[in-house]
Amino acid sequence: MEIEIWSDVACPWCYIGKRRFEAALAEFPHRDSVEVKWRSYQLDPGLPEHYEGTELDYLSTRKGLAPQQVSEMFEHVATLALGEGLEYRFDKVVVANSFTAHRLIHLAAAHGKQDAAKERLLSDHFEHGKDIGSRGYLTALGQDLGLDAPEVEELFSTDKYADDVRFDFEEARALGISGVPFFVIDRKFGLSGAQSPETFAAALDQAWQDAHPLVLVDAADGQACGPDGCAV
Amino acid sequence: MEIEIWSDVACPWCYIGKRRFEAALAEFPHRDSVEVKWRSYQLDPGLPEHYEGTELDYLSTRKGLAPQQVSEMFEHVATLALGEGLEYRFDKVVVANSFTAHRLIHLAAAHGKQDAAKERLLSDHFEHGKDIGSRGYLTALGQDLGLDAPEVEELFSTDKYADDVRFDFEEARALGISGVPFFVIDRKFGLSGAQSPETFAAALDQAWQDAHPLVLVDAADGQACGPDGCAV
Repeated sequence: MEIEIWSDVACPWCYIGKRRFEAALAEFPHRDSVEVKWRSYQLDPGLPEHYEGTELDYLSTRKGLAPQQVSEMFEHVATLALGEGLEYRFDKVVVANSFTAHRLIHLAAAHGKQDAAKERLLSDHFEHGKDIGSRGYLTALGQDLGLDAPEVEELFSTDKYADDVRFDFEEARALGISGVPFFVIDRKFGLSGAQSPETFAAALDQAWQDAHPLVLVDAADGQACGPDGCAV
Repeated sequence: MEIEIWSDVACPWCYIGKRRFEAALAEFPHRDSVEVKWRSYQLDPGLPEHYEGTELDYLSTRKGLAPQQVSEMFEHVATLALGEGLEYRFDKVVVANSFTAHRLIHLAAAHGKQDAAKERLLSDHFEHGKDIGSRGYLTALGQDLGLDAPEVEELFSTDKYADDVRFDFEEARALGISGVPFFVIDRKFGLSGAQSPETFAAALDQAWQDAHPLVLVDAADGQACGPDGCAV
């Protein structure tokens, strides 16, 4: 079973959704048959490489939202994140464009370390105030992930993996995805947003049944017991 | 050929279904290639460990059924059970939660004695008025089955096999099973309920053919006769 998750780094619901999905997957009986692929998406491709202000400044200045409203939004999301064990620090978040980070996620995928890369980027962005757009940070992350330094270096000296990132954007558009996180199971079932673990679990069950249907042998007279008692 | 049977202990149709399935299996030409696995299911996970009343009290009080209706149901099921050689004694049935019994069935499976454990539990519950939830009964059953006493003892001092039982519940859910007995052949064919031996036999045949199709050797020149005559 293949699960593709379109997601950005600078996306508070993406990290929360990741945790909730992981909770459902951990309980899924066929979890060993599940392959998860992170696909790239950018909520705000126009984000500057460098922005001196805070996330609150950015959202209020550039997006025209009232600072008070942004603060309340941060508080609400941080509380829900905490429910998943994530310590969001919006006061420390560094506004940065995620394009190169997405290229690094693709490089990590080529070495079987995609989930680790995604996890670190989300945590470092939301919990640790790291500048996920900076060359220094991405170089250090590549090292932590055990990626080859020359391959990481190529992200800055060439366009490597840029087409893969853009291909993900195009596929998202083709699938009608206009927000993230967005979960696609076997290119057949779609879930938008940070759903509850119960909803993810139900979707996994449905997809599994769909891919492995039991051929019900005609059972018109099958006497059985169910939650409401025994048929007589 | 692998046949998994989801089933509870406190499930009158499960014992009847077991007999009918066994009748079909005994006549199945490839019976030596069949492996049967009993999988755990609980119709009523909320059943108390101990309940002082009768099964009739339980069903009428807790499930809100009219005592007269329950009596008639008992009589009907007991008559059908008798047709399979089973002497149900609903007047003697001890209401008990089957969770620990399911763990014992898993322990017995680890020693190749799963069917014997399942058979004894069903018989003792429906025919002999045993309390299949009690430590005393389960300890004695373990001894009768030739299981190691310390391993049986672990069922009461640890959580051993509890995860296996819950895994069976989860798999049932993932397969869309909402009542028992439920028979699954090679994870492909499903039969719900205590079907007739003839239906079980047909399902066994169908599954065998499905798993062992004839590979047709290319026969462009094969002269043969068909409904319209003989090719020349």
